Amino acid sequence: MNEKKELQVAALENGTVIDHIPSDKLFTVVSLLEMEKMDNNITIGNNLESKKLGKKGIIKIADRFFTPEEISRLSVVAPNIRLNIIRNYQVAEKKEVIMPDELKGIVRCNNPKCITNNEPMQTWFHVVDKTKGLLKCHYCEKEQEVGNIKLI
Amino acid sequence: MNEKKELQVAALENGTVIDHIPSDKLFTVVSLLEMEKMDNNITIGNNLESKKLGKKGIIKIADRFFTPEEISRLSVVAPNIRLNIIRNYQVAEKKEVIMPDELKGIVRCNNPKCITNNEPMQTWFHVVDKTKGLLKCHYCEKEQEVGNIKLI
Repeated sequence: MNEKKELQVAALENGTVIDHIPSDKLFTVVSLLEMEKMDNNITIGNNLESKKLGKKGIIKIADRFFTPEEISRLSVVAPNIRLNIIRNYQVAEKKEVIMPDELKGIVRCNNPKCITNNEPMQTWFHVVDKTKGLLKCHYCEKEQEVGNIKLI
Repeated sequence: MNEKKELQVAALENGTVIDHIPSDKLFTVVSLLEMEKMDNNITIGNNLESKKLGKKGIIKIADRFFTPEEISRLSVVAPNIRLNIIRNYQVAEKKEVIMPDELKGIVRCNNPKCITNNEPMQTWFHVVDKTKGLLKCHYCEKEQEVGNIKLI
């Protein structure tokens, strides 16, 4: 039995290609976009050679187009990701990840005394400096940088 | 720009193909085999058409061959998975998932009073009936079925 035959992947007719994902963030992107629950056809490649990143990951999802809110979640782990919207086998649109003004329910507060770490409630951060990636907890006002965050 | 060109996947020269994964278990398999941490080339397809399963997932990992212990972890979520060992583009060996005699650090005990739920220690189950998939906690002796388990 020759394995080569099985490796053909159908071209993406309509959907989203998420490219230039840092390899160590690939499964975090899967989780942030809740792909575990999707029943769309998904193709993932990870630890692929990349001139820019050394190693990269890529995700292709058929018939799924993400909302700006969903895309903005990626800003906390992979701000340089690019999304290509595919329609009829062609790149119809390119989208960048834009840091939102607020992050709800994505990042954990690093203050152990913060109410969000002691009650069953959603976290809420204001992005006080988009260039530096500085977040401020709405409840306890503790600031942290995006580079050091822990996800929920 | 034509997306078709980008979808060519290199054939697997050496490595492991994990096939017939139930689609809703695909990312659990990723996690049980700790693929998030691997730097091997990984290709994943999910929600693919399957005559047997309706929908299935498949994972291809270059230059990685799993130990019997690693493979046996999959018994708790996907006992019917098959692993093909690829050498020089050919299927050199087929491996089945075999339920082990013991499971350590994989399944959570469903007894809230069990010491493993109250101290920072590894869980430990004896598989008392492999056909039924019946597990018994080594510490509190509570039994549970594999179909109802929660993973660590």
